[in-house]
Amino acid sequence: MASPGSGFWSFGSEDGSGNPENPGTARAWCQVAQKFTGGIGNKLCALLYGDAEKPAESGGSEPPRSTSGKAACACNQKPCSCPKADVNYAFLHATDLLPACNGERPTLAFLQDVMDILLQYVVKSFDRSTKVIDFHYPNELLQEYNWELADQPQNLEEILMHCQTTLKYAIKTGHPRYFNQLSTGLDMVGLAADWLTSTANTNMFTYEIAPVFVLLEYVTLKKMREIIGWPGGSGDGIFSPGGAISNMYAMLIARFKMFPEVKEKGMAAVPRLIAFTSEHSHFSLKKGAAALGIGTDSVILIKCDERGKMIPSDLERRILEVKQKGFVPFLVSATAGTTVYGAFDPLLAVADICKKYKIWMHVDAAWGGGLLMSRKHKWKLSGVERANSVTWNPHKMMGVPLQCSALLVREEGLMQSCNQMHASYLFQQDKHYDLSYDTGDKALQCGRHVDVFKLWLMWRAKGTTGFEAHIDKCLELAEYLYNIIKNREGYEMVYDGKPQHTNVCFWYVPPSLRVLEDKEERMNRLSKVAPVIKARMMEYGTTMVSYQPLGDKVNFFRMVISNPAATHQDIDFLIEEIERLGQDL
Amino acid sequence: MASPGSGFWSFGSEDGSGNPENPGTARAWCQVAQKFTGGIGNKLCALLYGDAEKPAESGGSEPPRSTSGKAACACNQKPCSCPKADVNYAFLHATDLLPACNGERPTLAFLQDVMDILLQYVVKSFDRSTKVIDFHYPNELLQEYNWELADQPQNLEEILMHCQTTLKYAIKTGHPRYFNQLSTGLDMVGLAADWLTSTANTNMFTYEIAPVFVLLEYVTLKKMREIIGWPGGSGDGIFSPGGAISNMYAMLIARFKMFPEVKEKGMAAVPRLIAFTSEHSHFSLKKGAAALGIGTDSVILIKCDERGKMIPSDLERRILEVKQKGFVPFLVSATAGTTVYGAFDPLLAVADICKKYKIWMHVDAAWGGGLLMSRKHKWKLSGVERANSVTWNPHKMMGVPLQCSALLVREEGLMQSCNQMHASYLFQQDKHYDLSYDTGDKALQCGRHVDVFKLWLMWRAKGTTGFEAHIDKCLELAEYLYNIIKNREGYEMVYDGKPQHTNVCFWYVPPSLRVLEDKEERMNRLSKVAPVIKARMMEYGTTMVSYQPLGDKVNFFRMVISNPAATHQDIDFLIEEIERLGQDL
Repeated sequence: MASPGSGFWSFGSEDGSGNPENPGTARAWCQVAQKFTGGIGNKLCALLYGDAEKPAESGGSEPPRSTSGKAACACNQKPCSCPKADVNYAFLHATDLLPACNGERPTLAFLQDVMDILLQYVVKSFDRSTKVIDFHYPNELLQEYNWELADQPQNLEEILMHCQTTLKYAIKTGHPRYFNQLSTGLDMVGLAADWLTSTANTNMFTYEIAPVFVLLEYVTLKKMREIIGWPGGSGDGIFSPGGAISNMYAMLIARFKMFPEVKEKGMAAVPRLIAFTSEHSHFSLKKGAAALGIGTDSVILIKCDERGKMIPSDLERRILEVKQKGFVPFLVSATAGTTVYGAFDPLLAVADICKKYKIWMHVDAAWGGGLLMSRKHKWKLSGVERANSVTWNPHKMMGVPLQCSALLVREEGLMQSCNQMHASYLFQQDKHYDLSYDTGDKALQCGRHVDVFKLWLMWRAKGTTGFEAHIDKCLELAEYLYNIIKNREGYEMVYDGKPQHTNVCFWYVPPSLRVLEDKEERMNRLSKVAPVIKARMMEYGTTMVSYQPLGDKVNFFRMVISNPAATHQDIDFLIEEIERLGQDL
Repeated sequence: MASPGSGFWSFGSEDGSGNPENPGTARAWCQVAQKFTGGIGNKLCALLYGDAEKPAESGGSEPPRSTSGKAACACNQKPCSCPKADVNYAFLHATDLLPACNGERPTLAFLQDVMDILLQYVVKSFDRSTKVIDFHYPNELLQEYNWELADQPQNLEEILMHCQTTLKYAIKTGHPRYFNQLSTGLDMVGLAADWLTSTANTNMFTYEIAPVFVLLEYVTLKKMREIIGWPGGSGDGIFSPGGAISNMYAMLIARFKMFPEVKEKGMAAVPRLIAFTSEHSHFSLKKGAAALGIGTDSVILIKCDERGKMIPSDLERRILEVKQKGFVPFLVSATAGTTVYGAFDPLLAVADICKKYKIWMHVDAAWGGGLLMSRKHKWKLSGVERANSVTWNPHKMMGVPLQCSALLVREEGLMQSCNQMHASYLFQQDKHYDLSYDTGDKALQCGRHVDVFKLWLMWRAKGTTGFEAHIDKCLELAEYLYNIIKNREGYEMVYDGKPQHTNVCFWYVPPSLRVLEDKEERMNRLSKVAPVIKARMMEYGTTMVSYQPLGDKVNFFRMVISNPAATHQDIDFLIEEIERLGQDL
């Protein structure tokens, strides 16, 4: 692995100059090199003459890469017959790039240089000797750099500098020791696919303007439905901007299925509707209910057992209670992989209850859906095939770059009836191709970002078995962590037993607290431990892991592992780091 | 401009081989070349020996670029002391890329090769001699290539091939003759910024994991509010996944402002709410009302004049009517730049009415907002400063890559109160930095894609004046088109007078229809002209422009110009092409 700061245009340390002995040969080579577009010729040329344009030697820690006079041809300094004018970004502006006349050469040079910056960042992201984060407080960061927008343009040298600066302060979400969120890691094929998506720059609403992406969405959603277990992969679905919106879609469609008149008449025309989800479920269910005019009071939180799983008998009790009041239960959202504990609600029992009371069964598998790819772990979602709708975020456990969230619906056509408005300026009915591929009218959005391509390309590159291997490895790592800390001095588990997902929830109890007898004082002080350790982690930039309180449990660490770069050594490091940063508390 | 198919790794035709005369020198150079990471060394080496790995000659039309044995070192064929093993993608899989051990070299080579494919596509996008679209019917496209997902992985050679194939069938939305949507063009700085965004792969919900992007959102939204005209740029806002969602946010916040209890109690607790928007407004207003439980029947469409502008007296009349029925008018959504006509509602008159009746004034300036950047054209939005909220999509008229849509709100804090759910696992209150930068809880989404960076970087690169120049140029081109066709034989304008935005709406009347006397038959046949011409355009792949019916007006062309690559010649071409493809109808 390269040292930090080396990157794409660095050279082995054994011979940095590359100077050939014969100046005539150098000139000949420079001519050859100039046949490359994209500024590479100039770079080769500069390398050849060993001039000041050579990139910084490897080994430095994150030096801001100077772009001044970058990629300029060395012609002025040495005898050289380079046929092309140089690309000096200090004299170039966005208006010199394509579609400008003669814009091809500066465009290719500029984009290649941006790419070099990105490739440097990619390499650094995986380098354990670099920081996960170079943390600055908001006010510091606002003052350290001029971020303001002005009337006048800046030159391309400045633009390249902004790219470097932005990445300098970014969180390396692909770093092997970044465990802070459910979405971690940086998949190389997914990244390539996302670059391609940006370059194609289109919108999912019609086949007309996104033919391949629309077909790939069709193919991919069908495959996901097959994996869920719906016969022949039949049904419907969409990629939406995140799990919260997918859950909101489910609520919207469930309501429409029961009371289609709500579309025209609104909530005033229907009885009071009640949704049920567990007390450990994601906050987006309440957010959705508030937005859809259902109201958060109409979301009833069902009790969980000590492992965070919904208790079916409590669900049934609350459904009966609601029905007695004359309200209408319309949705149960079970969670497959809760955010904090990683718990899987008992889907089969929930399905039985939903069937008995004719309630739409939604499964929020935003986090846990990935386990369906694993023959070893998919039993945890048994019963998901009985759901009416499923949220499944490949950008979480499957490591697809953000954003990539699917809502899958068992009944075909319902999304379309629920959301369509027949805008004639978008969905012309007299077009010359099969209009069933114009999927835009089943979405709430008009414009919709292309989120499918990165998942599709990763799937081709990894195969289902590749996702399976990734998921099995992450779960094994979680168990490894659990096995280490469950009996280790200074650790207390938040709940007993092996983790079902990769969530491992624990307190680190510093030595000074281990002997404290006053329970209240102990709790009080313990609640401050995780925030301080976390703040120190960020200041050192060595690792990141999340913490939160839950119910009557004071702040505890929630470790999650979705990062393909993480190894046993990184888990060991995390434990050592927590102890190093927390032992004095 | 290079011929299609040339791209990044092609060479001038004057000397394709680049073979130096001296084999010893070649060997020395090969050694130097091998110091480059990323497969470039191998490419140079192959170039040097002029072997089969040399990229295809330029000039061919879209040859699928062979990746077989790509970038392999030439060592086996010629005497060479290349020190490194070759990168042969046929033997490499995703698992060989980072974070794999020794993954750096294949990763850099792979990403660089993806980049080469993208750069080829970028260059072709601006080349008028290439097709805008290589159209295939859905079933053809499904059969022409195997898009299915399988258990087993594919090698990286196949993955690179998929990238090429995907782009082969893509619409070149940056092509100078692509006029099909409100979002067209491909900005090079915006593209670079979107690549960087993908590489940073993070989420907007907290400062903790997106420090720079959160600050840039703050800076950029403030600047947009200043331009709208709110004192000191005060207020609130968010980048949302598209204009439809931005409009839905406005409706949600307006409702909450008037009846905050709706968040907990739902629509059952409030009187019947009525929203008003013009009959030419975007369909997302109705979509939003359906979703929010308000119902489409409660969206009243106000009459427009013949230019598509809302008639204020009709608005007032309908408000009074509704109030007499005991319903509550809560939102007027005026449109600044309607989708079809590009009309600007009279915002000052609407503002007066909203003030008089204490109704939330929203301006849907998704399409027209860009004109605020132009000193010449911003008068068309006079009164926008009196709005309570504004939708403004920089991904439309300002040419920012998709997606980039802002909702701006005049009152600060309202979004937060409306949407927050205080999830303690995400928005910990005891973190060590200023929590006002954790903006996630004001969104409906939990995960939120980073949409701001491309706008911010483009703004730095162009300056406000650069956006102004782009907008002025597009409006000038629209006027140019209008001036040509208004008196040209065979054209009829859909409405009289100069376009206010870049929308030019017209019928092309083929010669056979010009003499028809039967009005009904003429209308009937005219309604079929635009669809046929459009289908032919797509089959030839020469240009793309939208058409639709509207009210009692049969299918007409709606030309819009937001593409920075378009010139007067492209407008001339469009007219000629319509006539070429439609003269026999």
